[in-house]
Amino acid sequence: MTEIKVLRNILAANEDRAAQNRARFGVRGLLAVNLIASPGAGKTTLLERTIAGLSPRLRVAVIEGDITGDHDARRIAAAGAAVVQVNTEGGCHLDAAMVDRALGELDLDAVDILVIENVGNLVCPAEFDLGEAFKAVVLSAPEGDDKPAKYPLIFSEAGAVVVNKTDLLAATDFDLAKAERDIRRINPDVPLFPLSCRTGQGLDAWLEWLAARRAEYAKH
Amino acid sequence: MTEIKVLRNILAANEDRAAQNRARFGVRGLLAVNLIASPGAGKTTLLERTIAGLSPRLRVAVIEGDITGDHDARRIAAAGAAVVQVNTEGGCHLDAAMVDRALGELDLDAVDILVIENVGNLVCPAEFDLGEAFKAVVLSAPEGDDKPAKYPLIFSEAGAVVVNKTDLLAATDFDLAKAERDIRRINPDVPLFPLSCRTGQGLDAWLEWLAARRAEYAKH
Repeated sequence: MTEIKVLRNILAANEDRAAQNRARFGVRGLLAVNLIASPGAGKTTLLERTIAGLSPRLRVAVIEGDITGDHDARRIAAAGAAVVQVNTEGGCHLDAAMVDRALGELDLDAVDILVIENVGNLVCPAEFDLGEAFKAVVLSAPEGDDKPAKYPLIFSEAGAVVVNKTDLLAATDFDLAKAERDIRRINPDVPLFPLSCRTGQGLDAWLEWLAARRAEYAKH
Repeated sequence: MTEIKVLRNILAANEDRAAQNRARFGVRGLLAVNLIASPGAGKTTLLERTIAGLSPRLRVAVIEGDITGDHDARRIAAAGAAVVQVNTEGGCHLDAAMVDRALGELDLDAVDILVIENVGNLVCPAEFDLGEAFKAVVLSAPEGDDKPAKYPLIFSEAGAVVVNKTDLLAATDFDLAKAERDIRRINPDVPLFPLSCRTGQGLDAWLEWLAARRAEYAKH
C-alpha cells in the first residue's frame, strides 16, 4: 500500500500547487492553457501559428515542457513570444511545481495568454493539474481516428480539441466524422477545431475562439 | 526520499520478473520483441503486416498493451495471430508482471516470435524491462524528424528502429537523413528500417531481418 499512499501524497501536493498557480493567473485575467498531445502531433507548430495569428492584439507567452533540450523553446522565441524551457530530465509530464518555478522567469503582467506545452504524451499529463483554465488536446490526422477511444481520459478532460494536419486527411484513412463521434461520446460539448497548421485552413476559428475565451476570462 | 525508495523497489521487483520472463523465452528459443512508439505511429498496422509477411514460416503471437479496450487485439486476431489483450486501466506502460500474467494465456510452445505491443508512449515504457530480447521503436514520418533528439532514452535503448509511413515523406518536412543522423548519434549501430505499411515498400527488409534474428536467437 506504500506505493498508493506515496502517489496520493504526490497528487495532493500537486493539487495545492496548482491552486496557487491558478490564483496567480486569476488575479491577472491571464488565460492559461495546458497543451497536450502525442509526440509529433504538432503542438509547437500550432503555437507558432497561434502566436503569429494573435499578435499584436494578444500577448502570448509559453512554458515549454520537454524531457531534454531547448529545440522547441528556440522555435517559440523565433516566433516572437516570451518563453521558458522546462526540462523534466526523463519525467513524462509537467507538474504544478515545475510550472510555478517557470513562472518566476516570466513577467506575468505582460502576458494575456500563457500556453504550457506539456511533454509529448497522451497518458500521464492527464493526471496532473497545472493550474490551467483548460486543457487543449491536439490530435493529428496521421495518428488515426481511433485515438479518442483508446486514450479516453485526456479527451474527457479536454476543454478544446484540435484535429491537426487535416492537409493529410486524403493521404490517410482518418475519418473525421468517426473521430468527432468518439470524442463527443466522451466529452459531448467540447469545442472541436479541425485545422492544418501547414495550409492555415481552419486556423482562424481556433484563434477567434481562443481570443474570445481570453476576453471572457479576463472579465471575471 | 520515500518516493525515490518506492520507485527503486518497484524497478527492482520489475527486473526480477523480467528475468523470469526472459528465461521462459530463452528455453524455448522464442524471440520476444517489446514494440514501443507514440500513439498512432502504426505499431498495430506494422504487426498486421508482420504477421502476414512471416506466415506460415514463423508463428507470431502478440500481447496487446492498451489503457482500455480490445480494439487492437481484435485487429491482431483478424490477422490470424494468437493474441492476449492487457488493459493497464490508465497505466502508461506495461510492466513485467503484466506480461507474466498474459503469458499464462498463450501456448508458448506454438510461438516463434512474441511481440509485446506496449502502450502508445515514447517516455515511460523505456524504463520497464519486460524480458524481451530487444526493444523495437517505431517512429512515423508525420511525427517529425526531431523526435530522436527529443526522446533520446528510448532511441538509445532500441535494438531496431522502424521509420513508418514513408509514403507520407513528400507531404511532410521529415528529413530521413537528419533523423538517421540523430538516431546514430544516440545508438550508432542500430538497424534502421524506413518502410511504409500502406504501400509495403521497405517491409521485406524488416521481415527478413526479424526472421534472421529469430533464427540466430533459437540457435543459442
